[in-house]
Amino acid sequence: MTPPARQLHLNAFLINAGHHEAAWRLPESDPVGSTGLEHHVRLARLAERGTFDSLFLADSPALHSDVGRRPSSILEPTVLLTALAAATTRIGLIATASTTYNEPFNLARRFASLDHVSGGRVGWNIVTTATLEAARNFGLDELPPHAERYARAAEFIEVSLKLWDSWEDGAIVADKAAGVWADQERVRAVDHRGRYFSVAGPLNVARSPQGHPLLVQAGSSEDGRALAARYAEAVFTAQQTVEEARSFYADVKHRARRLGRDDRGVKVLPGIVPVLGSTEAEAHERERLLDELVVPRYALAQLARTLRLPVERLELDGRLPDDLPGEDQIEGAKSRYTLIVDLARRERLTVRQLIGRLGGGRGHHTFTGTPEQVADRIEEWFTTGAADGFNIMPPALPRDLELFVDHVVPVLRRRGLFRTEYTGRTLRDHYGLPRPLGRALGGERIRIEESVA
Amino acid sequence: MTPPARQLHLNAFLINAGHHEAAWRLPESDPVGSTGLEHHVRLARLAERGTFDSLFLADSPALHSDVGRRPSSILEPTVLLTALAAATTRIGLIATASTTYNEPFNLARRFASLDHVSGGRVGWNIVTTATLEAARNFGLDELPPHAERYARAAEFIEVSLKLWDSWEDGAIVADKAAGVWADQERVRAVDHRGRYFSVAGPLNVARSPQGHPLLVQAGSSEDGRALAARYAEAVFTAQQTVEEARSFYADVKHRARRLGRDDRGVKVLPGIVPVLGSTEAEAHERERLLDELVVPRYALAQLARTLRLPVERLELDGRLPDDLPGEDQIEGAKSRYTLIVDLARRERLTVRQLIGRLGGGRGHHTFTGTPEQVADRIEEWFTTGAADGFNIMPPALPRDLELFVDHVVPVLRRRGLFRTEYTGRTLRDHYGLPRPLGRALGGERIRIEESVA
Repeated sequence: MTPPARQLHLNAFLINAGHHEAAWRLPESDPVGSTGLEHHVRLARLAERGTFDSLFLADSPALHSDVGRRPSSILEPTVLLTALAAATTRIGLIATASTTYNEPFNLARRFASLDHVSGGRVGWNIVTTATLEAARNFGLDELPPHAERYARAAEFIEVSLKLWDSWEDGAIVADKAAGVWADQERVRAVDHRGRYFSVAGPLNVARSPQGHPLLVQAGSSEDGRALAARYAEAVFTAQQTVEEARSFYADVKHRARRLGRDDRGVKVLPGIVPVLGSTEAEAHERERLLDELVVPRYALAQLARTLRLPVERLELDGRLPDDLPGEDQIEGAKSRYTLIVDLARRERLTVRQLIGRLGGGRGHHTFTGTPEQVADRIEEWFTTGAADGFNIMPPALPRDLELFVDHVVPVLRRRGLFRTEYTGRTLRDHYGLPRPLGRALGGERIRIEESVA
Repeated sequence: MTPPARQLHLNAFLINAGHHEAAWRLPESDPVGSTGLEHHVRLARLAERGTFDSLFLADSPALHSDVGRRPSSILEPTVLLTALAAATTRIGLIATASTTYNEPFNLARRFASLDHVSGGRVGWNIVTTATLEAARNFGLDELPPHAERYARAAEFIEVSLKLWDSWEDGAIVADKAAGVWADQERVRAVDHRGRYFSVAGPLNVARSPQGHPLLVQAGSSEDGRALAARYAEAVFTAQQTVEEARSFYADVKHRARRLGRDDRGVKVLPGIVPVLGSTEAEAHERERLLDELVVPRYALAQLARTLRLPVERLELDGRLPDDLPGEDQIEGAKSRYTLIVDLARRERLTVRQLIGRLGGGRGHHTFTGTPEQVADRIEEWFTTGAADGFNIMPPALPRDLELFVDHVVPVLRRRGLFRTEYTGRTLRDHYGLPRPLGRALGGERIRIEESVA
């Protein structure tokens, strides 16, 4: 069978014991596995066996939520990703890092090093970090305003691109006879002076196998979409319905085209939480089991924080209050806030039901069914303009990733929607994205002056 | 033979193609090997075969020197160290990181993660980063003053210690039945508010196998010694003569005792550059070969920068000018400056000779001879109060590390000075240092109020 031109992209979103907050309490779960390396190595190899494009690690530089609730000791993503690079050979490796709480020189350097060490398999999920807890670990008493964080993010990316391009390809000549290791003319200062950063450069790492890491973005607010349209090569997004997903997809592609980009250069990957069973009944039983293990007091406290309400105003068997603030009054994760409020109102959920839904997928699309049914849902979204692929969020790990690899991936392959083996070596190869040109070859960047508002 | 109570500690200081600046030009050298992972994996396994306590990666967040001069594309040390952790099982792993250009939450977290991933084999070489090039990558036009950098370093360490202790040992209870993952009472905020940092905490990584990474320090200025005496568990130092080394050793131990520390808890490790040959003549021939490969214009430019002179004031066959500033006028690496000036004056070296000496060991003790002679020198320093062990700085890599492991280590073992196999699992085990108590067990820290001047 000739593979069709357009192929699905699958990313395995790994998170402690799984995306369902109660996954660690399942009888088969190792509740402390995710605090160590072995658990992640197993998952990475599993995803690689399933020929996933990439795996992905979320992150925030703060301890979140109640440590009683779920596994809360997390290996720092660039460290963990390096260890996973050593344990795998083909799968792409994407880590989240914050532009608000890092310095561009340090982070650009770490990602370039990771790209070298992994042989060109690294991606950076760019986040601005929307929590007060994180701000308070970096000398701030308040979360910086949303627009401020995004303006800083845009400049951070610009500086990083300049640093990654500060060594031309081929700058290392290693001429023993002449005593010239690299050509000074092809390693150039950056001399960036902007609103947030002054960085002289050059980087102390040569241009990496991919030119620079794949740029990934996950914010779906207005600022987030603008940033994604300009820089992102892949977008992770939480979309509850196929209609919403289509609208988001069209919007991101449109924005990218408007900026003169080829819209195939930005892959849109909604999250999906597949709750699998060999029959529909078994899948629903599995979902019920997981939801029963949720301890409501933790989730209630978190929902109250997200909605900016005292916890006393939420009643488990009541609905959300009517007088919630609009998204424009929220300085945190704007799109997540709106998604939660809309979900509760659209489906007329009680607080208890809402907590169940969020506990499973934190606002992402949850789908419960057989492998064939999950494949149907994926195909529907993929072929009707809602997705270029999916961010697969297994409710419990490793079990649900294993089920996906062994039972959903073969269906997708049979339908000609997904690769049967890796054909490329780098993460860019997997996503079908070109290696960016360096500055010397005319790979000019959109400039900071036209930055997102 | 019963091993004597006191054993040597050996650290393998790995740096691109070797410590001699011209090592990459040797016929047998792979001039680009050090830009990738494989070269380092080979060296790490070699040092582990030699039962070294640890290996060590230096660092500065800037591109230094002329890229023509020597390999200048460097993998970021915490990334490289993570990859080396995956490639080894016993050897300790020490990386340099700057307190001037990092945030404590980010760095404490990365080292804690590395300690988890490596099974307790990590050390942090604490540096304040003394170059203008680095400052200019982080929004500064000038190098911050020496005293300022050291005051920030002391507070940075205090915050890091608090973060590493923010989870008690045993805080993770993983009680599936009760739905309690960790005990909230045993994970505590840090609430640090100091002159340089405000950090709420707690860390989002549980207490690591070693409690915290081994703390290493390498500055030998007054501020550097004060910081080392207070916090360091190992000290790397450049000492040209055994007399100077004894005086430095006695001073550091004395300072530690004065602060109420057990002085066996701070290991003093001078650097030694062993230029080896199976005969003395062969060793000297090797040294000559290396020195001949030095391109003087690079070294001359660097010496001029270090001495704060226009390059025109240095004549290759003349001596250093008499009117050099004193150490108190130097804001950079003070002790390195004085060492260079003293070396040139004591041995009445011409600039050309000085460059040769610095090209080989950058101010560290260079010793040229047979394996027996190198072992004699090591034994002399070790048994006469000049060293607890050595920072081994092979002039060319991998060759000179291989020679050391295969020919010097066996001599040291025969003499009962060095282990024949690893007896412990962690870096602290190798150095004979206890695992620090957490705060809950009374492991109170010296407070920031009494910080170094």
